[in-house]
Amino acid sequence: MRTASTQQEIDGVQQRIKSHGLSPHLSPGTERTIIGVLGQIFPELKDELERLPGVAEVVRISKPYKLSTREFREEDTTIAVGSVVIGGIKPVIMAGPCAIEDENQLMATAKVVKEEGAEILRAGAFKPRTSPYSFRGLGVQGLKLLAKASKTFDLPVVTEVMSSEDVGMVSSYADILQVGTRNAHNFNLLDAVGKVDKPVLLKRGFSSSYEEWLLAAEYILSGGNSQVILCERGIRTFEQYTRFTVDLAAVPVIKKLSHLPIIVDPSHSTGSWDLVTPISLAAIAAGSHGIIVDVHPNPTVAKCDGAQALTFENFRTLSTQIRSIAEALKAIPTEPGKSG
Amino acid sequence: MRTASTQQEIDGVQQRIKSHGLSPHLSPGTERTIIGVLGQIFPELKDELERLPGVAEVVRISKPYKLSTREFREEDTTIAVGSVVIGGIKPVIMAGPCAIEDENQLMATAKVVKEEGAEILRAGAFKPRTSPYSFRGLGVQGLKLLAKASKTFDLPVVTEVMSSEDVGMVSSYADILQVGTRNAHNFNLLDAVGKVDKPVLLKRGFSSSYEEWLLAAEYILSGGNSQVILCERGIRTFEQYTRFTVDLAAVPVIKKLSHLPIIVDPSHSTGSWDLVTPISLAAIAAGSHGIIVDVHPNPTVAKCDGAQALTFENFRTLSTQIRSIAEALKAIPTEPGKSG
Amino acid sequence: MRTASTQQEIDGVQQRIKSHGLSPHLSPGTERTIIGVLGQIFPELKDELERLPGVAEVVRISKPYKLSTREFREEDTTIAVGSVVIGGIKPVIMAGPCAIEDENQLMATAKVVKEEGAEILRAGAFKPRTSPYSFRGLGVQGLKLLAKASKTFDLPVVTEVMSSEDVGMVSSYADILQVGTRNAHNFNLLDAVGKVDKPVLLKRGFSSSYEEWLLAAEYILSGGNSQVILCERGIRTFEQYTRFTVDLAAVPVIKKLSHLPIIVDPSHSTGSWDLVTPISLAAIAAGSHGIIVDVHPNPTVAKCDGAQALTFENFRTLSTQIRSIAEALKAIPTEPGKSG
Amino acid sequence: MRTASTQQEIDGVQQRIKSHGLSPHLSPGTERTIIGVLGQIFPELKDELERLPGVAEVVRISKPYKLSTREFREEDTTIAVGSVVIGGIKPVIMAGPCAIEDENQLMATAKVVKEEGAEILRAGAFKPRTSPYSFRGLGVQGLKLLAKASKTFDLPVVTEVMSSEDVGMVSSYADILQVGTRNAHNFNLLDAVGKVDKPVLLKRGFSSSYEEWLLAAEYILSGGNSQVILCERGIRTFEQYTRFTVDLAAVPVIKKLSHLPIIVDPSHSTGSWDLVTPISLAAIAAGSHGIIVDVHPNPTVAKCDGAQALTFENFRTLSTQIRSIAEALKAIPTEPGKSG
Repeated sequence: MRTASTQQEIDGVQQRIKSHGLSPHLSPGTERTIIGVLGQIFPELKDELERLPGVAEVVRISKPYKLSTREFREEDTTIAVGSVVIGGIKPVIMAGPCAIEDENQLMATAKVVKEEGAEILRAGAFKPRTSPYSFRGLGVQGLKLLAKASKTFDLPVVTEVMSSEDVGMVSSYADILQVGTRNAHNFNLLDAVGKVDKPVLLKRGFSSSYEEWLLAAEYILSGGNSQVILCERGIRTFEQYTRFTVDLAAVPVIKKLSHLPIIVDPSHSTGSWDLVTPISLAAIAAGSHGIIVDVHPNPTVAKCDGAQALTFENFRTLSTQIRSIAEALKAIPTEPGKSG
Repeated sequence: MRTASTQQEIDGVQQRIKSHGLSPHLSPGTERTIIGVLGQIFPELKDELERLPGVAEVVRISKPYKLSTREFREEDTTIAVGSVVIGGIKPVIMAGPCAIEDENQLMATAKVVKEEGAEILRAGAFKPRTSPYSFRGLGVQGLKLLAKASKTFDLPVVTEVMSSEDVGMVSSYADILQVGTRNAHNFNLLDAVGKVDKPVLLKRGFSSSYEEWLLAAEYILSGGNSQVILCERGIRTFEQYTRFTVDLAAVPVIKKLSHLPIIVDPSHSTGSWDLVTPISLAAIAAGSHGIIVDVHPNPTVAKCDGAQALTFENFRTLSTQIRSIAEALKAIPTEPGKSG
Repeated sequence: MRTASTQQEIDGVQQRIKSHGLSPHLSPGTERTIIGVLGQIFPELKDELERLPGVAEVVRISKPYKLSTREFREEDTTIAVGSVVIGGIKPVIMAGPCAIEDENQLMATAKVVKEEGAEILRAGAFKPRTSPYSFRGLGVQGLKLLAKASKTFDLPVVTEVMSSEDVGMVSSYADILQVGTRNAHNFNLLDAVGKVDKPVLLKRGFSSSYEEWLLAAEYILSGGNSQVILCERGIRTFEQYTRFTVDLAAVPVIKKLSHLPIIVDPSHSTGSWDLVTPISLAAIAAGSHGIIVDVHPNPTVAKCDGAQALTFENFRTLSTQIRSIAEALKAIPTEPGKSG
Repeated sequence: MRTASTQQEIDGVQQRIKSHGLSPHLSPGTERTIIGVLGQIFPELKDELERLPGVAEVVRISKPYKLSTREFREEDTTIAVGSVVIGGIKPVIMAGPCAIEDENQLMATAKVVKEEGAEILRAGAFKPRTSPYSFRGLGVQGLKLLAKASKTFDLPVVTEVMSSEDVGMVSSYADILQVGTRNAHNFNLLDAVGKVDKPVLLKRGFSSSYEEWLLAAEYILSGGNSQVILCERGIRTFEQYTRFTVDLAAVPVIKKLSHLPIIVDPSHSTGSWDLVTPISLAAIAAGSHGIIVDVHPNPTVAKCDGAQALTFENFRTLSTQIRSIAEALKAIPTEPGKSG
């Protein structure tokens, strides 16, 4: 649509699309509104739509991920959660325990991460575990504690949903729904989170290519939910000293291919608390819109992934360092020039 | 050895080691000298050595890479090439064309990278190419041009040596010998560069684990050459949008495991010029001692890997940005704290 | 339990286990019945149980996959589906179209594969597709066609279930439930199929290690369903000429680690119809309990994965060749001897 | 050339090619002779060559591996070593110790493998070892023992050459030169073995794609040596229970892409003696022209890779089983039909 198009014009275009039996996908932006049409557009329809009032141009998308590609939306997508903006210039820190263990652990952690600059609280109530005999989370009881921590410290929360059946329930407690790496190709779950009005943090499958990852996002976008945050969390390679291999090239590549925001998880990717700080700083330097990091009052007794959790003290240091790096980056242009 | 040990004491310990039919490996440092002994040290020998004047302690190394591990040398190794120090606080930029094509191309590039802050000139005369039909470099003629550029612009040079037979010849032109990723397990070549008195830039094999990489360094160190610079240049994974997957966790991991300096090659790892800048900044933020980067006067006509080369203008921008990031990092402590 | 233990004795042991608040897992076999106990067994309990009538021995399982390891059950598990036995000496051929497209396609294929020696009909009604815009299957309508084909040709059927919500419904049509590679770590789905009384064909996640795969099986077994068939279907590697890299060492490794039957999918692993025959023969020679293979009346117009489907004629050839290989193998001992 | 072309005609074509400054590559075959021309052939030259007597057709090769592709030679290449033919219908067994340790070990093994059906003796005198501190082989002394064993038992030998400098020397003892996986991209070595008149066994680099592997072969072929045997020996993947992941699809893929013979190494790929037999049988069933397998009189005390070596007794069993499988395969057509 033209930058100056009216709501009436936008409605008109959508109705015309529907009259042809096709589905319009509205993508509002700060500069202009874009309407995606899924399906074959015959040359006649292109002409017909371009003649409608308010329409700037009708463009064919060549990529298989129609709605997540920059071809569809040139402008960066930003996602607002309360007063926090994800996808803008300021990197966002999401922090908290891997798993909610009890009220004390959660409240203590929430308090510290809030004080030290985290803007989103992360914590799992439903935990996907490789072994059925590991701690699988507190479930609904955990969500209730999470809601309490969120309210007490005025921190929006992100938490994992593992099953399409649970989407409604988890949505009633969470501000951002997380789809984990092991469910990155659980298409029923992707369909389900595509139908709610909450942002979705979509972790990369640990063996997903960029294209497969964007196609997973496409399930959510094509379901009607345009608020997708991508999260690089390490891929599986032959190197097994680290838990996974964090692929920081994903940050500039995804920013080139897609308008969606992208953040990095330095905790689950490396699996070691002492790698979390250098990888967090590297992620921010590579242009990441934020990080999501495990913090625990006492990592040695954590019920889940203690080896990768930062202590409060280490989180404080990390947070300070990220501010320094972000400050330095603000002073310099992040876009490279043009190839010769 | 004790920090205050004399040369005479050091000589004495070496002689005693030799008298038992074992090989001493001298590793001088700014704080203290360390003497490595390869082979079984029986308890009696430990006692015998510890009683010698100047000896601080006899310690058994548990890692398979005896001389490259931090267990052997706690202090960082720094390598001086002329007035350039690799492994210190200031990150070093090595830049230049992938392959030497002709005098104009080389001199023009050397001039610009020197002006813009590169401290080492990189350029290949012997090029390992996947296909026998690709341009394989100018050979000795290229080395002569390289020596000329080095002298003209007062820039030490790093260049690849591909065969044990060529080590002597390449050493007579180069300041740093590069062992490429495809020769990372060419043990005859590693043996050969272990016997010369030039620093060696050892690229990680694109499928080498950290341990295999340090064991490749061990070939060089155990040959008597203690000047090894490690270079992460991307590993082979399922993701093939980028040429390789750059593994930036390698930087803090190698710094934890080894005292050797480590740098990153953002050009060969990503294969795309527009990923070189964000990955370079990320490398520096992760703690890399430097980067080695492809620069070409006109990438579109380069005879080798043009897609990944920076133009002069892009290199200028990169260099400025690296200085900003390095400046920001100087202000903050890079060591994480202790685990809870 | 002892080989001669009575039902009463078995019940007695189970009750004693329950009286301690623990869960008994009954695993009946042709030679002896085994009762698994999940949880800590204190030395006193070991003594107490061993004194009960009918008990042969109480053994601690060291592997994390308690119920799927050979430590738990030494004897091979065989799974009977009607008159077909999976896990015995005779390899079982499962064949049919990747996706059910219409009645004609399904019935024609079922007829031919039955005539040519397939014992199980495979066909998908719910298709996990990388792109939301690909054909996603006929759903319930497809299941109804599948039930018709099953009845008409007296062929048990295996078909995929993608969501825990659908398990009951799919179970009412299918003889074997398939959990696909993209759901190999969808733990809610694994929990759900662990609670039904149907065999489950569990495909290896395309990036699952053997241990993770057996732990996925463990979800099903620990839920109470002991009928799990493992299926190697190719893993993701750097080699991308084939769709995935079929890992035939998985066959002897899994047979060493686990008592569960294992088959191979040569179609989805290779992605090319002309590799299906050599890989099928290789799978059988490696000791696979069967194969599951895509067959289509007209692969060039298939709605899903046509490139890997065999024509009827090619399936006929494959089936003949498998019989020849299986016949040759029958004559030779398949167990290697003992290491020197 | 035409099937009935004369030597004079063949010479004539080669001279004409040379007169244009291009290099002819003669590839004699049982059916017809093929002359490869490396470099640009302009349309005029194509016409000119096609008018020469004896020329059947001038065809442009689209693949980057010009001389190893089936486009260049449709007919299978067979390589004769004494009376042994590699690349024909009968699979060839190459067997022997990983490393030559002493005369007794070598002679005892050679005797048994000869008696049990091996046609080539394998044994290493120069061993590429990950650690510089491991046993690196007996060197020339080992080659002398190898020559003695070869003569005593009338067994041609294959042994590794690690450096271009050693090619002449190793050639004077060996019947087949092996280029190991760690030297698969040591281009100087490939150039060197391309210039001798001995067959070369080229192992796949453990991270080489099929194309890179064929391009490595191309180095040898374009040097003038047309006797290349390819050897699949496992690739590096995330699965680390086995030493590498043996990629048996490589067998039919390489046979589709290239006219060169291909064999499989079940020992180094799996790393476990008890996987060697099933993988050997699978390799033969997939169409491999042979296997190369580690055998040792007493694996538990082997100086190199004992865990993967077969005892004499296990080798006897393997050999018998391979004959059974090969016999069964002879009775069936190995080529799949045509796609629908």
